[in-house]
Amino acid sequence: MKQISPWKPLHEREKERRAKRDAVLRMAAQSFNEKGFHATSLDDVAARLNVTKPTLYYYFKNKEEILFECVRIGLQMIDEAAENVARRGGTGVEQLFAVMRKYAEIVTMDFGMCLIRVGEDPLQPAARRKLRQLKARIDRRFRSLIEQGIAEGDLAPCDAKIAAFTVAGALSWIARWYRPDGPLSPNDIAEQCISVLVEGLVRRAEPLSGRPRSTAMYEGPSRTK
Amino acid sequence: MKQISPWKPLHEREKERRAKRDAVLRMAAQSFNEKGFHATSLDDVAARLNVTKPTLYYYFKNKEEILFECVRIGLQMIDEAAENVARRGGTGVEQLFAVMRKYAEIVTMDFGMCLIRVGEDPLQPAARRKLRQLKARIDRRFRSLIEQGIAEGDLAPCDAKIAAFTVAGALSWIARWYRPDGPLSPNDIAEQCISVLVEGLVRRAEPLSGRPRSTAMYEGPSRTK
Repeated sequence: MKQISPWKPLHEREKERRAKRDAVLRMAAQSFNEKGFHATSLDDVAARLNVTKPTLYYYFKNKEEILFECVRIGLQMIDEAAENVARRGGTGVEQLFAVMRKYAEIVTMDFGMCLIRVGEDPLQPAARRKLRQLKARIDRRFRSLIEQGIAEGDLAPCDAKIAAFTVAGALSWIARWYRPDGPLSPNDIAEQCISVLVEGLVRRAEPLSGRPRSTAMYEGPSRTK
Repeated sequence: MKQISPWKPLHEREKERRAKRDAVLRMAAQSFNEKGFHATSLDDVAARLNVTKPTLYYYFKNKEEILFECVRIGLQMIDEAAENVARRGGTGVEQLFAVMRKYAEIVTMDFGMCLIRVGEDPLQPAARRKLRQLKARIDRRFRSLIEQGIAEGDLAPCDAKIAAFTVAGALSWIARWYRPDGPLSPNDIAEQCISVLVEGLVRRAEPLSGRPRSTAMYEGPSRTK
């Protein structure tokens, strides 16, 4: 009888390897988010994946490398979302509100949450620098959309740098307090947090809801209510 | 000749001891804020104080206990500031804006910055729980001032829980990006960040600056420009 190889073809093995690597990252991110980076051991992560720690070392050098990847993916998700929004075009505020929605959504997901809850602090200086470069890129995107919105007359004149940090701070904070088992959906949270940032806390003489364009801008297609 | 005691009286020694303990905490907070908690060793902190590590152990059990105290003091500063504002009374928005200003100011200071930049994540569960109780207390203060502001008709109706987190998130984020040697003073930052939160990003048909009461409310006595 002709011997059939018990190994799968190379491309399938590569695909499997990648799926396993992703599973390690996602499981680690969930554990970092729940218990904190320091309270998470690689033994825990391995046990949750039904393997032992040496198996993880086939994919990653150590816990720091895993965290680096989790945070990098979180940042990349935001950056790519912003890139997609930019590619679709539109006014500064249209793009800004779309990026805000994506940002709010991503920080309630495993890697985005890990980016905010743990971040780069436990890492070595070189790794921290790389992640900070990615962060600065996202910050520049916010800033330039705000500048564009001011120039186009839709946003109130303000210091775009501080406004960008105010927006990013409020949205990032969602990752700190959001509970997947809580009463509020990520969508409700995003909508209301963005509404505070866009309309302000103080009651407007002329409510924005009377202005269909601006309402459509930030409530967008993902509004469910 | 009559022997004079080379030791200072008890009350003075107690005062000195407290000053030294405070110096350890402040020096540690500054180092945590600059380099991160994990990258800071107690040897560094001791060296910066011209002593050796065993001297620090006279005041604190370990680095975790020092962090606990730094974060606790940061939270206590905010809580006490909010308590002082409450004692002076005023409408919900008047109190809310006053607490927002104090919060923004405190997170640019050593312990407040440490509260946000490092926080309770590196600590043991029992310590984390204690600090989270203090955090929840501050959150409840924000929430109830927002509810009061809505009830009094000054704030736009919103989910007070999400609005409180939005405000706390935006203000806390200042601690992450503020650089004492940067071009913006804590006062400028506070003013502009609060202005975004209060007035919103979108241009108002009727600018708030035409409404003297609300301007006075959040620009308050600490406005320097």
